[in-house]
Amino acid sequence: MAYGLLKGKRGIISGALDEKSIAWKVALKAKEEGATFTLTNAPIAMRMGAIKQLAEQCEAEIIPADATSTDDLTNLFTKSQEVLGGKVDFVLHSIGMSPNIRKGRAYTDLNYDWFKQSVDISALSFHKMLQTAYKMDAISEWGSVVALTYMAAQRTFPFYTDMAEAKAMLESIARSFGYHYGKYRKVRVNTVSQSPTVTTAGSGIGGFDKFYGFADSMAPLGNASAEDCANYVVSLFSDFTRMVTMQNLFHDGGFAMTGVSEEVMQMMQNQQ
Amino acid sequence: MAYGLLKGKRGIISGALDEKSIAWKVALKAKEEGATFTLTNAPIAMRMGAIKQLAEQCEAEIIPADATSTDDLTNLFTKSQEVLGGKVDFVLHSIGMSPNIRKGRAYTDLNYDWFKQSVDISALSFHKMLQTAYKMDAISEWGSVVALTYMAAQRTFPFYTDMAEAKAMLESIARSFGYHYGKYRKVRVNTVSQSPTVTTAGSGIGGFDKFYGFADSMAPLGNASAEDCANYVVSLFSDFTRMVTMQNLFHDGGFAMTGVSEEVMQMMQNQQ
Amino acid sequence: MAYGLLKGKRGIISGALDEKSIAWKVALKAKEEGATFTLTNAPIAMRMGAIKQLAEQCEAEIIPADATSTDDLTNLFTKSQEVLGGKVDFVLHSIGMSPNIRKGRAYTDLNYDWFKQSVDISALSFHKMLQTAYKMDAISEWGSVVALTYMAAQRTFPFYTDMAEAKAMLESIARSFGYHYGKYRKVRVNTVSQSPTVTTAGSGIGGFDKFYGFADSMAPLGNASAEDCANYVVSLFSDFTRMVTMQNLFHDGGFAMTGVSEEVMQMMQNQQ
Amino acid sequence: MAYGLLKGKRGIISGALDEKSIAWKVALKAKEEGATFTLTNAPIAMRMGAIKQLAEQCEAEIIPADATSTDDLTNLFTKSQEVLGGKVDFVLHSIGMSPNIRKGRAYTDLNYDWFKQSVDISALSFHKMLQTAYKMDAISEWGSVVALTYMAAQRTFPFYTDMAEAKAMLESIARSFGYHYGKYRKVRVNTVSQSPTVTTAGSGIGGFDKFYGFADSMAPLGNASAEDCANYVVSLFSDFTRMVTMQNLFHDGGFAMTGVSEEVMQMMQNQQ
Repeated sequence: MAYGLLKGKRGIISGALDEKSIAWKVALKAKEEGATFTLTNAPIAMRMGAIKQLAEQCEAEIIPADATSTDDLTNLFTKSQEVLGGKVDFVLHSIGMSPNIRKGRAYTDLNYDWFKQSVDISALSFHKMLQTAYKMDAISEWGSVVALTYMAAQRTFPFYTDMAEAKAMLESIARSFGYHYGKYRKVRVNTVSQSPTVTTAGSGIGGFDKFYGFADSMAPLGNASAEDCANYVVSLFSDFTRMVTMQNLFHDGGFAMTGVSEEVMQMMQNQQ
Repeated sequence: MAYGLLKGKRGIISGALDEKSIAWKVALKAKEEGATFTLTNAPIAMRMGAIKQLAEQCEAEIIPADATSTDDLTNLFTKSQEVLGGKVDFVLHSIGMSPNIRKGRAYTDLNYDWFKQSVDISALSFHKMLQTAYKMDAISEWGSVVALTYMAAQRTFPFYTDMAEAKAMLESIARSFGYHYGKYRKVRVNTVSQSPTVTTAGSGIGGFDKFYGFADSMAPLGNASAEDCANYVVSLFSDFTRMVTMQNLFHDGGFAMTGVSEEVMQMMQNQQ
Repeated sequence: MAYGLLKGKRGIISGALDEKSIAWKVALKAKEEGATFTLTNAPIAMRMGAIKQLAEQCEAEIIPADATSTDDLTNLFTKSQEVLGGKVDFVLHSIGMSPNIRKGRAYTDLNYDWFKQSVDISALSFHKMLQTAYKMDAISEWGSVVALTYMAAQRTFPFYTDMAEAKAMLESIARSFGYHYGKYRKVRVNTVSQSPTVTTAGSGIGGFDKFYGFADSMAPLGNASAEDCANYVVSLFSDFTRMVTMQNLFHDGGFAMTGVSEEVMQMMQNQQ
Repeated sequence: MAYGLLKGKRGIISGALDEKSIAWKVALKAKEEGATFTLTNAPIAMRMGAIKQLAEQCEAEIIPADATSTDDLTNLFTKSQEVLGGKVDFVLHSIGMSPNIRKGRAYTDLNYDWFKQSVDISALSFHKMLQTAYKMDAISEWGSVVALTYMAAQRTFPFYTDMAEAKAMLESIARSFGYHYGKYRKVRVNTVSQSPTVTTAGSGIGGFDKFYGFADSMAPLGNASAEDCANYVVSLFSDFTRMVTMQNLFHDGGFAMTGVSEEVMQMMQNQQ
């Protein structure tokens, strides 16, 4: 069912890698709800076949941008405003990568050049996006910016290694920039802390599958899917949530607020 | 602009005292978005003239109920299902009262009978509402329950006295019952922690007006209004937020995440 | 090893039921560190044989008090000051009981009279203790008050039922009263959120044993013992922590900050 | 008054710049409480006259180390163990610097090379310290590591700009490494979130003085001083707090838990 919730709204959606991506689902949902938007991804990460298909479905233009490059980001906001015919109403940041995770380095044996890359790509890119938009005054009044994050920013999940630090920084940027962009143009900035999700990115994390089941047994509503997340993000882009800002919002079927579930206790008992 | 976001949904809205009430605005907004619902209030708190006017506007039936009485609540859910033609999809709990605040008792000189009344009316009523609905299986699968709360549950606001404790308990009930109702019927339960709002209830709190201005100077987006809150609550009743549960959600223009604003620092300096 | 950390300090310790009690360990440790204090318990809860033995060991007087009675609490502070020769420097609140838990009622089928008893005994008693002391000006400047709590105030643990709400309120009282007592006499008020502990009280909670193992597998340092907790509480009574107030302090070997441990993930995998 | 709380303990204390530094006070207090330790600072930050004086007072050796260099840190732990005669029991991380703050850059106009320096010096150095120690197995069982942080990691303080992100990352490192070091050697890792403090570092932050007064009017106990902080840190190094780990501990006279104080409300009213 579609409601026209984003009718007339223009946006930028980053991070749609393939059809499992949360950003992919956000694009489909935003389209369904009446938005027009551009798609962006790092040239290096783009799977051109895949994203072209999405672009066609959404009648959206693809504007490649390396989110660690302010030049690329300037181009992204310039072109997006040209293509869309005005300032942008919403932005999705769905960008993250850790070489330390990819290469299986333990948290107690991190490679610090890679650590800096994790931070640069996964967190600092968010500040660059916001600062670029701010300087260009590229986001409309009452616009909405969302970045996807994970609960490892609050509690330790051993397999998540240095992405925990990147996400903690990302969430901090949402708070800090939310203050300034709120004062400047009433723009709100939030992070959505999503359940573990079966995406191509998520599956790259060792131990992820084991953990997926644990989270699902813990959360009273089970893990939130990528589609669920798309719905929630659309609500945060809509005019129904104008005064929600600088927050980290859990979207996790109740996982974060559950100390232990009866299922998990049962499984533990079977073990003993 | 209306989107039909609650089209086909049935609900119960408590606490609409007069046109300043948040619950009043929620009713108007829910109606606008296509919901049908019943209105309820404590017989003792009802200003019949006022609520009748709202009921007419919303084509809603009024079912008086003292929320501290499980009999009244049973009647509320029974009648609501009859009137609305089926199980309920959403419930708003907007009920709170502190005799200690009304009668100006300091927090260090509380009357404990009144304290118990504060808790009974403002917090335990929420458990009773949920337990009554649970036992009657009166809420549809994927239904949504929201209670209004205030940030005094996390930090101290001296003028709020024993309502801080009542709200802390209310938020705990949302977490605890959210677990059980989530497992049982995928029903989500959340609290919305709203900016100080100029309502008839809010204005009863001594020092409130001074504080309203402080909060407004602190929050980057300013204080959220009752209308803003209604919008947000409607988004939480909609199908866009199905996996959000057991949370306390700030709706405050950024107040909670702001340590200090430049305006407040300026005013402090002028003082010195 | 003893350091004389509480030398010259006078206190009141409630809740020492038997030698498994955390309060019992606090008493022994406080004695060892040079404090003098009185012991108190509800007449109904006292196991006279046991507490007399502790009193002898600690050269402490027993002053029975029902913590729901302000008369009893007035007597407690009056007598304690007489016996100890001056104002009190520290107070331990270790009082909690839920008839709903004792009688095995599900959280979705609570008896509300019992709920009120849980709240009265486990939470409101803390306000009464503080208000009584405040009115009598019975706590020295820079005194320290600690109440024991559990993490169910932040996240749901199904077996903990209505004690979650009582603990949420208890922690709120620490914040609220900490504000007022801080301004008045520089007295600090905190709660310590302790690991599940094998006490007579803890063992009364159904499912507790299963949970104890889960928490122990989750926490990097394992569960904190009653002795560990006594050490920590003594540090909070000492002059080393004068500016720590209005906080809920986890004392749990890292459980609260661990999303999942490798051990738990391993056990989950074995299950599948 | 001294208790011998750290008798027999060996440590490393970083960041003692001059006698206003918190680290300086920690060194004096640790000495007083019986510890032996080495002092370290970045060669570039050292004011040799000052730190030599402290070293003499504490009978401590100075081992210069750039905390962004793992070679320097390896040398620090090697030499410290030689000098002190064994593994280290406690470590203080008190290192932070933001070129963006020093050079007055607005948060919406950050220089990203400087941002990376802020992160490298103020946060990543903490991981390097821990990873170096971990690999060398240089910290004793039940050792304690503390890093100093600020509440800007939770809420926005406009003048703190990119140090907010550095501190958010620092606190995340404490959680993540606390997990691993806890499992490995029962070592605990915490951050202490201190009141604004009149140090040479703190005073470099524009708007700091205005803010100092605001925080002092807000906190029921007033701002915690550097001496107070030293006391608290010593308690965290002692054996009284062995099961406290992975936490961010506020040491702020109650500021963090105070939504508004009566003083601040009064000053706001005078303004209007």
